[in-house]
Amino acid sequence: MSEVKAYGAADSKADLKEIKIERRVIQPRDVKIKITYCGVCHSDIHTVRNDWGGSKYPVVPGHEIIGKVLEIGNEVENIKVGDTVGVGCMVDSCRECEPCKQDLEQFCEQGMVGTYNGRDKHLGGHTFGGYSEEIVVDNYYVLRVPENLDENAVAPLLCAGITTFSPLNHWKVSKGDKVGVIGLGGLGHMGIKFAHAMGAHVVMITTSPGKAEDAKRLGADEVLISKDTDAMKKHANSFDFLLNTVPVGHDINPYLSLLKIDATMCMVGAVEPLEAVHGGSLIMGRKNVAGSLIGGIKETQEMLDFCGEHNIVSDIEMIDMHTINEAYERVVDGDVKYRFVIDMESLRN
Amino acid sequence: MSEVKAYGAADSKADLKEIKIERRVIQPRDVKIKITYCGVCHSDIHTVRNDWGGSKYPVVPGHEIIGKVLEIGNEVENIKVGDTVGVGCMVDSCRECEPCKQDLEQFCEQGMVGTYNGRDKHLGGHTFGGYSEEIVVDNYYVLRVPENLDENAVAPLLCAGITTFSPLNHWKVSKGDKVGVIGLGGLGHMGIKFAHAMGAHVVMITTSPGKAEDAKRLGADEVLISKDTDAMKKHANSFDFLLNTVPVGHDINPYLSLLKIDATMCMVGAVEPLEAVHGGSLIMGRKNVAGSLIGGIKETQEMLDFCGEHNIVSDIEMIDMHTINEAYERVVDGDVKYRFVIDMESLRN
Repeated sequence: MSEVKAYGAADSKADLKEIKIERRVIQPRDVKIKITYCGVCHSDIHTVRNDWGGSKYPVVPGHEIIGKVLEIGNEVENIKVGDTVGVGCMVDSCRECEPCKQDLEQFCEQGMVGTYNGRDKHLGGHTFGGYSEEIVVDNYYVLRVPENLDENAVAPLLCAGITTFSPLNHWKVSKGDKVGVIGLGGLGHMGIKFAHAMGAHVVMITTSPGKAEDAKRLGADEVLISKDTDAMKKHANSFDFLLNTVPVGHDINPYLSLLKIDATMCMVGAVEPLEAVHGGSLIMGRKNVAGSLIGGIKETQEMLDFCGEHNIVSDIEMIDMHTINEAYERVVDGDVKYRFVIDMESLRN
Repeated sequence: MSEVKAYGAADSKADLKEIKIERRVIQPRDVKIKITYCGVCHSDIHTVRNDWGGSKYPVVPGHEIIGKVLEIGNEVENIKVGDTVGVGCMVDSCRECEPCKQDLEQFCEQGMVGTYNGRDKHLGGHTFGGYSEEIVVDNYYVLRVPENLDENAVAPLLCAGITTFSPLNHWKVSKGDKVGVIGLGGLGHMGIKFAHAMGAHVVMITTSPGKAEDAKRLGADEVLISKDTDAMKKHANSFDFLLNTVPVGHDINPYLSLLKIDATMCMVGAVEPLEAVHGGSLIMGRKNVAGSLIGGIKETQEMLDFCGEHNIVSDIEMIDMHTINEAYERVVDGDVKYRFVIDMESLRN
């Protein structure tokens, strides 16, 4: 084992501060990564604060990891020392169950091992995430980062990126489709970029007229203010797909009225109860509500390759590790365009 | 116009009683039908009692109509005098909009014309349904009834039948699929018959252990009591499709846990708010909730032909027209196996 510096929270009320954690000795199929950047995801905050229950302390968050390969095990192929690589939301899964065999490791029947607060199969205890100097990960869960992408801004692709790319990809959004992205935050801004790159006519749907200009800069063709009932009526029954990134429970019935017959709205943000969905909103027009969780490893690599091809990265604000607690407050307030990324050099100095 | 006897309600509090209504003079594309049987649908009661608002009185219910052709217009082909025919939930639609062109007249952009309480394009006012001696209907909305089926028990296929057949057909239920039918009433009992005939392994899902025996007689391979949490856990993540026929708002989260990854639960009964759906129930396993409304005319004919091929009819209890008010109380109490059909001779005598 080797001791590395990290930033973690001692309990649900504590600020994050510098701590020491152990990383395992590299195994034949492992990759040791020097972490250069780590994105800040809202899930980090939920876990630190134990909002979902079950958090294990100390929590060392971070599942949007970019780094340089320091060392590889003797069975690792396709990855070499010095490569720029990424690690997302998971670092292990059983790889034997049906979902794993279908490249849907996020739904592993044994439970995927989260990059942090997962059950560490090697050292026991729980896993520690990317707010740290180094990480050791089975090469299967290590992603290749296209060389042309700006390394500063790639990290959020590993969670915000795949979370929005996967449903757009799964529901086969393509040229000419009318796609609505509901909510403009870390997830929504990636949703706009992807749907635009896929050739869709993209409508940003928001409660905040102030977000219109930025939505268009990001690639939206139109902006629909969801509180404007006349505008909502004009768009009724016209969408091929809706990506709902709103992170809290809300009334989805007005959005269902926007869908064409047989079309789907996919929820990716609200891991909590929605307000009462009306059966009639689904029955009239044979409409669908679905959900989607990140994406499998194969699809995450496809997403990164797609980003390389279309030169897509996240809009980010770079921060130092020691400002993380203030950054959390700003995430909770929605005051970030659109994702904080930690420059991990600031932890080493 | 010709005056015929019917049974209708004068207002939302009134019992149904004999009244006179007018039927239009037959037009070139019309078919005049002597009604022999009419099914009793829960929607009839909701409309009589104005539960959904907007009822127009007198309400003459009935949209599960079987009869003999008395007369045809001079442009009518494929239907001849003396044929046994059916009329379901609609008697008109624009036939020019996209949904109509796609054989989804139930979602006509102009609004389908309901068999009762619809806007009557011919006589003005509103349409009168099948609790009457005769009806005149555009031949496009007249269905052919396979000769081998027991005419007494065919009527409920026109609403309860197509409502359950259509989603099973649309979501491509086929041999070997594990299909759950939730709720055993007029809709559910048809759902079991269809799913069984399609070759699925059918699980009847109910809160009432007392329904197990009958469910198996109807074609269920297994019965799952939804209040039995251990049994529900055993069936977790195992269903290819769920047909939810429960007619009122309820907590669908436990049922969502039964679905396989990517599978769908389709709502056909509850035209009212569901209890709070949890975003996580959809996100974990990329699950879908959808709705479905009856079916188009083409699919309704396919359903009748399928019934002919598999010798499927409804389980019915035959009643006289003058006992309709008592029958309504029994429908509301769930005291019918599984559909009342009115012998319309009892109105003529």
